[in-house]
Amino acid sequence: MTTRSLPSAGFSITVRVSVPADSTSIGRLTTAAGDADAIVTALDVVDSDHQTVTVDLTCDTADAAHAESVVHHLESLDGVQVRKVSDRTFLLHLGGKIEVSSKVNLRNRDELSRAYTPGVARVCMAIAENPEDARRLTIKRNTIAVVSDGSAVLGLGNIGPAAAMPVMEGKAALFKRFGRVDAWPVVLDTQDSDEIVSIVKALAPAYGGINLEDIAAPRCFEIEAKLREALDIPVFHDDQHGTAICVLAALTNALRVVGKQMSDVRVVVSGSGAAGTAIMKLLLKQGVGDIIACDRPGALHRGMPGLSGSWEWLVEHTNKSNYSGSLAGALAGADVFIGVSAPNLLEGKDIATMNSDAIVFALANPDPEVDPREARQYATVVATGRSDQPNQINNLLAFPGVFRGLLDAQAPKWTDDMALAAAKAIADSVGEESLNASVIVPSVFDPKVSPAVAAAVRAVAKGAEDPDPDSEKAPLSLR
Amino acid sequence: MTTRSLPSAGFSITVRVSVPADSTSIGRLTTAAGDADAIVTALDVVDSDHQTVTVDLTCDTADAAHAESVVHHLESLDGVQVRKVSDRTFLLHLGGKIEVSSKVNLRNRDELSRAYTPGVARVCMAIAENPEDARRLTIKRNTIAVVSDGSAVLGLGNIGPAAAMPVMEGKAALFKRFGRVDAWPVVLDTQDSDEIVSIVKALAPAYGGINLEDIAAPRCFEIEAKLREALDIPVFHDDQHGTAICVLAALTNALRVVGKQMSDVRVVVSGSGAAGTAIMKLLLKQGVGDIIACDRPGALHRGMPGLSGSWEWLVEHTNKSNYSGSLAGALAGADVFIGVSAPNLLEGKDIATMNSDAIVFALANPDPEVDPREARQYATVVATGRSDQPNQINNLLAFPGVFRGLLDAQAPKWTDDMALAAAKAIADSVGEESLNASVIVPSVFDPKVSPAVAAAVRAVAKGAEDPDPDSEKAPLSLR
Repeated sequence: MTTRSLPSAGFSITVRVSVPADSTSIGRLTTAAGDADAIVTALDVVDSDHQTVTVDLTCDTADAAHAESVVHHLESLDGVQVRKVSDRTFLLHLGGKIEVSSKVNLRNRDELSRAYTPGVARVCMAIAENPEDARRLTIKRNTIAVVSDGSAVLGLGNIGPAAAMPVMEGKAALFKRFGRVDAWPVVLDTQDSDEIVSIVKALAPAYGGINLEDIAAPRCFEIEAKLREALDIPVFHDDQHGTAICVLAALTNALRVVGKQMSDVRVVVSGSGAAGTAIMKLLLKQGVGDIIACDRPGALHRGMPGLSGSWEWLVEHTNKSNYSGSLAGALAGADVFIGVSAPNLLEGKDIATMNSDAIVFALANPDPEVDPREARQYATVVATGRSDQPNQINNLLAFPGVFRGLLDAQAPKWTDDMALAAAKAIADSVGEESLNASVIVPSVFDPKVSPAVAAAVRAVAKGAEDPDPDSEKAPLSLR
Repeated sequence: MTTRSLPSAGFSITVRVSVPADSTSIGRLTTAAGDADAIVTALDVVDSDHQTVTVDLTCDTADAAHAESVVHHLESLDGVQVRKVSDRTFLLHLGGKIEVSSKVNLRNRDELSRAYTPGVARVCMAIAENPEDARRLTIKRNTIAVVSDGSAVLGLGNIGPAAAMPVMEGKAALFKRFGRVDAWPVVLDTQDSDEIVSIVKALAPAYGGINLEDIAAPRCFEIEAKLREALDIPVFHDDQHGTAICVLAALTNALRVVGKQMSDVRVVVSGSGAAGTAIMKLLLKQGVGDIIACDRPGALHRGMPGLSGSWEWLVEHTNKSNYSGSLAGALAGADVFIGVSAPNLLEGKDIATMNSDAIVFALANPDPEVDPREARQYATVVATGRSDQPNQINNLLAFPGVFRGLLDAQAPKWTDDMALAAAKAIADSVGEESLNASVIVPSVFDPKVSPAVAAAVRAVAKGAEDPDPDSEKAPLSLR
């Protein structure tokens, strides 16, 4: 690991310790935590008497092993007794991170008879007679499914549906917070593509969109294609399209910084799975001059053995010179490196072989393809997926706005043109005056981004500019 | 229809009308609404000038046809112009009745890194290593699926999944309001039993229980049985078990009122589908002396042609004298009539043939098997499913508390003993001092009922009395 993790809130612990009631004990505690490289964020006295003080010491650590070593370090101090170690991340996840709330009051008989029987029967019959009314009179209007089989969760691999839930719940919480979208986690205890397709088809009547998440390649391609064919609601695989949108947005601004054109650059992509393939397809659509796709066997090229599926498509549409060597060799003279693969594949000297004003997006998480500090010695623009480095390329910039726009437009399909428009909206969210090599993407907390993405997607869906985001408001008169 | 519907909030409309600005116009309006049998509940002036006053007149009507006739009646008045008619029930359902809310804050980087990446990875791995932790660290702890294929929705029949959504969303809202249970509507675009079973199996990892809803018999029996076999979470079909619990509770108290014993009474049940069968099984379990099950062919009896499935089971366990005549004939000398079938099958004279101190539960909705006012001339206790009559037998008394108890106990199965305990809890919620022929069940708004049902179910699940409902509280220390 070339980039050592810094202490972060994701690994924050609260240690309850008893110390002797003297003037130096608490100072020794915080000093010891600091000596162990933890960052103390809070100190609360829980209890005290003449002999003993009990305090809750909260500190950020780098990872689970570091947290343990911090606790051991505190325990080794004279007179200090560790009573309990609480993990703040686990506390936050207790009982899950989302809930179902009622939007209607059910305080009395009248409210009950409107929201449920007998009044609800009329609403049901209206939908039975006019199925399009489901978008108006049910949660389909604003609700999507976050569908996963748990086969490729974060960097954790095939951990299955139950263990995938904390991610899918988190995604649902992000959809609501950043896009006002109601998203429900649908984790499936099957990894059979056809079964997943038929399940999602059966579930679709309740939803206005499907967000596929953390499904392993190549099954994700097949599932997505079959669902698009079958459904009249948009199907979006965030690992593919969300990533591609954000990378295109970042590349658009990076090229602005170095003064190069999309059509002139040669791009080397490391990782030709779901994300890499989607990135390359979108870059080609945007008119990138040349791309070399790499994966474990090196550069994908025409004539290599065992080509099939998406790799077959890739070699037909990339690699103009049909280069057939290693990833490092492909970098020589390249303008852009995009990594969505594995940690520590490259060193600074590899980046040094790139064209002048090189752009490096090393997005493997948590450890990038190349140490960003090394890369920065040879490249003009460097971005990663990490929040503790400049230029974090994070799908959160795209997916909430994408589905906000799709739902507002009641769009039946997700299209490449929407992806291009969404990427432009993200790129344009960084004002000309703010743009520089360390600021090529907006902050995920920038409140302008999601509405801008939503408006862009909505405009494409409606086939025209739609200046009024409220034009979809519900009519008051109903029948 | 022998029981004419009364105006109710389920059919409340708001009519925007312009009338001449004189001293009598508004009075003429409300008088006219009253003459048309509507009940005026609100009158709001929206706009006025020297010539004209515009008002919103809100009134309850009996049904859609009545609402239309009320509007026509208003339009026919001199100088009155109807501008808009809004249906308050439809307004309430716009955009659906439930939403997904985040229980965690996502205001800044630290909160993001605990709820989502990188912190969430640790929570995922904890569940991957110890699958039981899903009940602790995900929404499985408090979330159930409300599953329907839309094949038997209310009395509306097979209207399909999209049109069933308003009911399932309403059910979810009721689960939260009355049981603090997070319930999510899962409507399925298939009516193939095996496919429904395999879909629910695949979805199960996210849920702590399954509530089947509005699935037609006999498929509901098969689906329920297969899911119980396959899953380690409780499977409850509310149309069966919720109804059975409430009927047993009501019968328990009705027998207290008339001073008869469960073991001594003969019960005639009209309707041997899902609800009827479940009711009869539970009454047999509770020790009812004899039951005659009726359906379209009359009394089900040994030796009748075409018996199979649940009817075969019924004839083997009911009808001691093997009576083979009509429903009306079966009533002669019977102590209890329970109808879960169709409107207006019986008249007062049929009830008159029953034993003294007869008990009549005519639960077909909205129009009961016998006009309750007629029945009351011959029976001591009369109950219906209607909210505008005394003794409304409503599943809402049972299902929120049932799942509250099941989730609190982390119960793997639903059992008959839980049903008996839940029924007793509902019956006992009517205090000895309140019990009479018009009050055999508590109000659905009685806040004691759901906790009492939950405690009863939890106690059975845990195999012992559990006096402390908070004993399941989350531990603070986690690792």
